[in-house]
Amino acid sequence: MIENDFYLSPTQGDFRLHDLGNLILDCGETLRGAKLAYRSFGTLNADRSNAVLVTTWFSGTGKVMQDVYVGPGHALDPAKYFIVIVDQLGSGVSSSPHNTSGPQAMARFPTLSIGDDVNAQARLLAEVYGIERLALVVGGSMGGQQVYQWAVTRPAMVDRAAPIACTARISGHQRIFVEALKEALTSDPAWRGGWYGAGSEVRDGLDRLARIVATAGWSAEFYTQERWRSVLGMSSLEDFMSGVMKAYFAPMDPHALMAQMHKWQRADVSRHAGGDLAAALARITARTCVMPISHDLFFPPAEAEADAALIPGAEVRVIHSVEGHMGLNGFEPGYMAQVDRHLSDLLAR
Amino acid sequence: MIENDFYLSPTQGDFRLHDLGNLILDCGETLRGAKLAYRSFGTLNADRSNAVLVTTWFSGTGKVMQDVYVGPGHALDPAKYFIVIVDQLGSGVSSSPHNTSGPQAMARFPTLSIGDDVNAQARLLAEVYGIERLALVVGGSMGGQQVYQWAVTRPAMVDRAAPIACTARISGHQRIFVEALKEALTSDPAWRGGWYGAGSEVRDGLDRLARIVATAGWSAEFYTQERWRSVLGMSSLEDFMSGVMKAYFAPMDPHALMAQMHKWQRADVSRHAGGDLAAALARITARTCVMPISHDLFFPPAEAEADAALIPGAEVRVIHSVEGHMGLNGFEPGYMAQVDRHLSDLLAR
Repeated sequence: MIENDFYLSPTQGDFRLHDLGNLILDCGETLRGAKLAYRSFGTLNADRSNAVLVTTWFSGTGKVMQDVYVGPGHALDPAKYFIVIVDQLGSGVSSSPHNTSGPQAMARFPTLSIGDDVNAQARLLAEVYGIERLALVVGGSMGGQQVYQWAVTRPAMVDRAAPIACTARISGHQRIFVEALKEALTSDPAWRGGWYGAGSEVRDGLDRLARIVATAGWSAEFYTQERWRSVLGMSSLEDFMSGVMKAYFAPMDPHALMAQMHKWQRADVSRHAGGDLAAALARITARTCVMPISHDLFFPPAEAEADAALIPGAEVRVIHSVEGHMGLNGFEPGYMAQVDRHLSDLLAR
Repeated sequence: MIENDFYLSPTQGDFRLHDLGNLILDCGETLRGAKLAYRSFGTLNADRSNAVLVTTWFSGTGKVMQDVYVGPGHALDPAKYFIVIVDQLGSGVSSSPHNTSGPQAMARFPTLSIGDDVNAQARLLAEVYGIERLALVVGGSMGGQQVYQWAVTRPAMVDRAAPIACTARISGHQRIFVEALKEALTSDPAWRGGWYGAGSEVRDGLDRLARIVATAGWSAEFYTQERWRSVLGMSSLEDFMSGVMKAYFAPMDPHALMAQMHKWQRADVSRHAGGDLAAALARITARTCVMPISHDLFFPPAEAEADAALIPGAEVRVIHSVEGHMGLNGFEPGYMAQVDRHLSDLLAR
């Protein structure tokens, strides 16, 4: 077990940890003393009909979802909804290789799946709040992969689903891209077979990962328009790479990122229907609004639209953002205005 | 100096080497005993008006240009034109760090620019053939960067220009992408500060570079449609990664790739007009056909179209290819049919 201040409250804000005890994982192993980090906003109404689950994406935690997506003036308004944000397993705050002690620590941590997240979240919602039904599940990127997993495997529990900037089944393009990210970390001699002494020792690997994320996380137009200047306030491309990309990943734990990437690379709801994506998505009963980002190089709108065509009654709302996939962070004000409008419409349906 | 069979005639076909002697480089250093690899097809006519220069791209040599772009039935038909294909400096066949002996070998090899290529090519054409004027300069990717350099800095020598799948000024997106490729090589401990004993020792770095190239060299649609199966005959994504991508780069010299990437990253004709791209491109007098590839993630069509808008009388012909940038290799028959049609039209103008 490694101490990493980045994943504690001074940085991550207020959150609670729910102890799930034994969590039987899709890989067959049982994660012992599994913990989920969560935070809630608003009040659960008497018939428990206003619960909204917000999931987290790769490298993100509940903090960014809280800061960007939830609050007065947003569709996810605590005055109306009881909003629970849950950190995914391996987020660095929830159970992760580096914050686990004993025989499942570090390189011995079991491999996770998106299905494990949804199983764990369902238990948390039931055990802590008695919630059996969700008015909405919403999340972006890997968070959206969890939304699809919820909607396909627990249709009776999901009234509405809003997968943002993701696909229901990982593409070949994403699989090889994520593999390049993993190799950036494991090729660092400081990785030491997963037995580094502190995450910061793997600094070269984290820097390389940051640079590769930058090649597809933002759009070509983002770079051509030098929006690292206008939107992010950086003085040069190098300043952006150092001050935004590398600075973002530097404090994180490499194993936490690896655990998430393993899930990201394998997210595929079709495995619940023998590989038949159409059959899997046909199980969705939630009112679904699929929300790709116009300039997303990770999850191109056309792929999200192909998913939506297989979901009964699904609507597609393309979010326009030159930031591409990274637009998820809400850097430009226009992004959240679109998300809020689409989520409000969905919640009103 | 390192022997590498990959860059010799059994693999590269017939070529000749022209000894330029001293080549004064843009970086200020003089490359001593500089050699350009070239091959020619057809017959130079009496007034030397049918000369076509074909340039090479990153990791490519004259061989692929010969095999894919030149021959009976192609626009570049040796029955009509005298076609000279020149390997770029650092190609591994022309002067490169690993095939240079003495004080400029390996990590001591000077840094190159696209301008150096064009200076060297102009000398070769004059010294070997007495050619002072080109009916056409054509090349793709880095080869296209050379086409722009020719058209902007030697307008009186270029009757027609066909830059394929490239831009006149490197984008920020490309700069950081290429940096990720360079780091893939230099982060390999076997790189040894550029003093490896054989290129094959840097095998992990070459494999990583192959994987990162794969993330943007082909389009997302290429992967979604599993065209590694239908177009390339591979049995799985992993088979494609191993049998196509890694197999392609494995025999190459890491320093040769690094020398090319240094040029790729800095290609920018605007430096000849104080950074004013419009002023630089306004100098072009060649009849120009700008040919982006529809699904190119390296050089998106919109960026090529923006260049064309600044070139007097330039035409844009978008080549449709789901292969994206890698379409340049002519894997699908429809690709070359389009290129031949566009080049024939340009040559007829």
